[in-house]
Amino acid sequence: MKEQYVCSFLISLIGEDWIFFFLLGLFMGLTSWAMELGIIMLQKGQKWIYGRLDSNGFLQYLGWVGYSVALIMFSAGFTQIVSPQAAGSGISEMKTILRGVLLKEYLTFRTFVAKVISLAFALGSGMPLAAHSLNVFMYMYYCMLNESRYREMLAAACAVGVGCVLAAPVGGVLFSIEVTFTFFAVRSYWRGFFSVTIAAFFFRVLAVWYKDEETVTALFRTHFQVDFPFDLKEIPAFAFLGIISGFGGALFVYLNRRIAQFIKKQKLFNTFLMKKCLVYPVMVTFLISSLLFPSGFGQFMAGELTQNEALVTLLDNRTWTKDGIAEEFDYIGNARVWMHPQVTVFGTLALFTIMRFWMCALAITMPVPYGAFMPVLVIGAGLGRLVGECMAFWFPDGIHTGHAIYPIVPGGYAVVGAAALSGAVSHSFSTVVMVLELTGQISHLLPALIAVVLANLVAQSLQPSIYDSIIKIKK
Amino acid sequence: MKEQYVCSFLISLIGEDWIFFFLLGLFMGLTSWAMELGIIMLQKGQKWIYGRLDSNGFLQYLGWVGYSVALIMFSAGFTQIVSPQAAGSGISEMKTILRGVLLKEYLTFRTFVAKVISLAFALGSGMPLAAHSLNVFMYMYYCMLNESRYREMLAAACAVGVGCVLAAPVGGVLFSIEVTFTFFAVRSYWRGFFSVTIAAFFFRVLAVWYKDEETVTALFRTHFQVDFPFDLKEIPAFAFLGIISGFGGALFVYLNRRIAQFIKKQKLFNTFLMKKCLVYPVMVTFLISSLLFPSGFGQFMAGELTQNEALVTLLDNRTWTKDGIAEEFDYIGNARVWMHPQVTVFGTLALFTIMRFWMCALAITMPVPYGAFMPVLVIGAGLGRLVGECMAFWFPDGIHTGHAIYPIVPGGYAVVGAAALSGAVSHSFSTVVMVLELTGQISHLLPALIAVVLANLVAQSLQPSIYDSIIKIKK
Repeated sequence: MKEQYVCSFLISLIGEDWIFFFLLGLFMGLTSWAMELGIIMLQKGQKWIYGRLDSNGFLQYLGWVGYSVALIMFSAGFTQIVSPQAAGSGISEMKTILRGVLLKEYLTFRTFVAKVISLAFALGSGMPLAAHSLNVFMYMYYCMLNESRYREMLAAACAVGVGCVLAAPVGGVLFSIEVTFTFFAVRSYWRGFFSVTIAAFFFRVLAVWYKDEETVTALFRTHFQVDFPFDLKEIPAFAFLGIISGFGGALFVYLNRRIAQFIKKQKLFNTFLMKKCLVYPVMVTFLISSLLFPSGFGQFMAGELTQNEALVTLLDNRTWTKDGIAEEFDYIGNARVWMHPQVTVFGTLALFTIMRFWMCALAITMPVPYGAFMPVLVIGAGLGRLVGECMAFWFPDGIHTGHAIYPIVPGGYAVVGAAALSGAVSHSFSTVVMVLELTGQISHLLPALIAVVLANLVAQSLQPSIYDSIIKIKK
Repeated sequence: MKEQYVCSFLISLIGEDWIFFFLLGLFMGLTSWAMELGIIMLQKGQKWIYGRLDSNGFLQYLGWVGYSVALIMFSAGFTQIVSPQAAGSGISEMKTILRGVLLKEYLTFRTFVAKVISLAFALGSGMPLAAHSLNVFMYMYYCMLNESRYREMLAAACAVGVGCVLAAPVGGVLFSIEVTFTFFAVRSYWRGFFSVTIAAFFFRVLAVWYKDEETVTALFRTHFQVDFPFDLKEIPAFAFLGIISGFGGALFVYLNRRIAQFIKKQKLFNTFLMKKCLVYPVMVTFLISSLLFPSGFGQFMAGELTQNEALVTLLDNRTWTKDGIAEEFDYIGNARVWMHPQVTVFGTLALFTIMRFWMCALAITMPVPYGAFMPVLVIGAGLGRLVGECMAFWFPDGIHTGHAIYPIVPGGYAVVGAAALSGAVSHSFSTVVMVLELTGQISHLLPALIAVVLANLVAQSLQPSIYDSIIKIKK
């Protein structure tokens, strides 16, 4: 009896799955980290050009927009030439495969290479796109190599793809299950958790070594007070945020589908597109990039910030206004761009949210590889921050009735908004876990949960999820 | 088209499910809170008697043990008379029902009443048992009332049961899915999340109102440093903790099954039990309670602490020893009982872990309603703390090589140990989320994830989960 135990234990230790997932996790951690480095360098390039051409406004504009357009052109062109299937988010394809359609031509090494290169350039261009599709795909590709049981392994595949990039391992596993599966075999859980842990570990270890960080902490760490993160009387405000996020999420999906269908229907436009496949992405990039130009309209909507920078500032634990006037304290670095002398903080936040909203819905119709999750998260954070700043304006001394004064924390609203809007767009609840992992603080769990549940109730009754919507469009 | 949307939205808002789950969540929040109050009062009663009989050691012992025995006798007797099916954890029954066996005689109002009353007394007795089974059952009962689609609703049922008591809503949903389902329909997710949110909200609101707490925070809030929670070089220690937790978890399941089978096999003993069903629980309670007696052997293993008190002290963010000698700083309240002049902190922690380990495995063979999750969590925290204190002893200045000195945080090891051992016993990964929710800090996510994955790898290859094991025994 005992020998049998020892035997089965040893087999499970050195079994194929174990080593397979270890290597996959390791590989994913390494690749994500390398990708991240490349993207950050490309994003810095645009800022560097912008800074160097300071003397001439028009040249500066040309440099800013030209850089984005060039990168997107390269990205779209490379995708088109090497493997047109590489375009799009990986999750819709994943869903299709899980429903029984084996997209063999999709899971090839060609597509893999196209994804890696194109994605890096598309993200480097500063468009509101994000990175999780690549990893999903890569993982799927490796699962295909091990074809005999690739279906079993897709759970792990998707989990690592999402979890690794966002540095949110648990949230990644849960999110991937929610967005791709209809029925989920609980016994596959361990595969996901195992590989995601390995991947997250190596990803973070590399970050520590490379950046000389002291140790592994959350990606977008917040510093909210933990003793009194929010008052119970603020719950209606969080619930309200959840409901408008729900409507916002549905609107996002609707808008994206209408844009995509509009382009499909325009016959003249479409035949033109067939011949010159680069025209559409160039047009879109030109429009978005022009609006984001920091010395132009971009100054009213924090256009110079990359998505990650914007998210960090939105999660700031201080209130930006007092009685409607921008506070005068030392803004660490990037937060300063939200304070525009003509437009108040409310104006920049509202513009940021609204403009990025349609920009993102437009950008993900481009034929390049992309992920839609992160941009939506950032937009949600903007929306939440706006509600939070309004709350802080209406209740400058907080709404706690006891002796101590606890001011409203608009950053907490940003966390809740991010979870709610991304949850509404993707029809998933695990964004709660993901956002809490990203910020490294769990203090706003209850409001986030309430907002995400309400946002899902609203969004699910109005529109399909963004991934289902994309599948519909492609049909 | 739009009218259709509005219509379907309104229906989804006022639809049966929505209101049903709202009311269930509300009811569960209220009942859990009332139960908690009752249990705390009963537990205080034992301490009060112990304090009053201070003058006479023997009388004190009689009072301490007698109190436990009386409560367990009442609990077991009440269960036996009103509904013998009420005994045991709810999760094994849940699994059985989900596998297609409809335990109709189990899901009755009689059993429900028996569960409520017996559980309160069993937990009040100070035995290493916990409370989640009641809620699972209650929920199941209500699902049965709505019989036509009760299967769909079991997801929500189990989620609320676990999540509510532990004040860990997300972890509760995930844990319940892992331990009860084989295949899970993702579309049922929202039910679980929705009711658990409602329940958690009301449970916490009541706690704030009743206890005059300032606002809703984590149940066992930790205060670890967030800037540098752990060093990367500590990861092997966390991994080691995970592996021994895995073996510990398997041993726990094995021990519990052997005890249960031993009792079943003893024919003489068994016929005796049949006639006097109270003899066995009284014997077990007498043994455990005698060992826990605070002036006797209990002083070496923190016997006077209830489980919740013990967990709070184990998660303390300070190191208890310096160079192996107990630190002299002001111990807030309960932490002082770990410092025994004859036995070092290492001794009390080791004794606590080992003694509670077999006590818990023994206690859950009693024919009373119980939950095994919380006691195992506390034992895991003790094991983790022991490893952590050893690490702090071996590396008094931490193992960080930079300029700053970051001492080892043994409380972090307690968190990781709690997640790993409970994960190993129940074969689930979501204990990570649950423990982080309980402590309100997410800083130890990565070590906890690594430890839980390793613990699961080991435990799953050696033994079935405790719930499957109980099902096997009952067959």
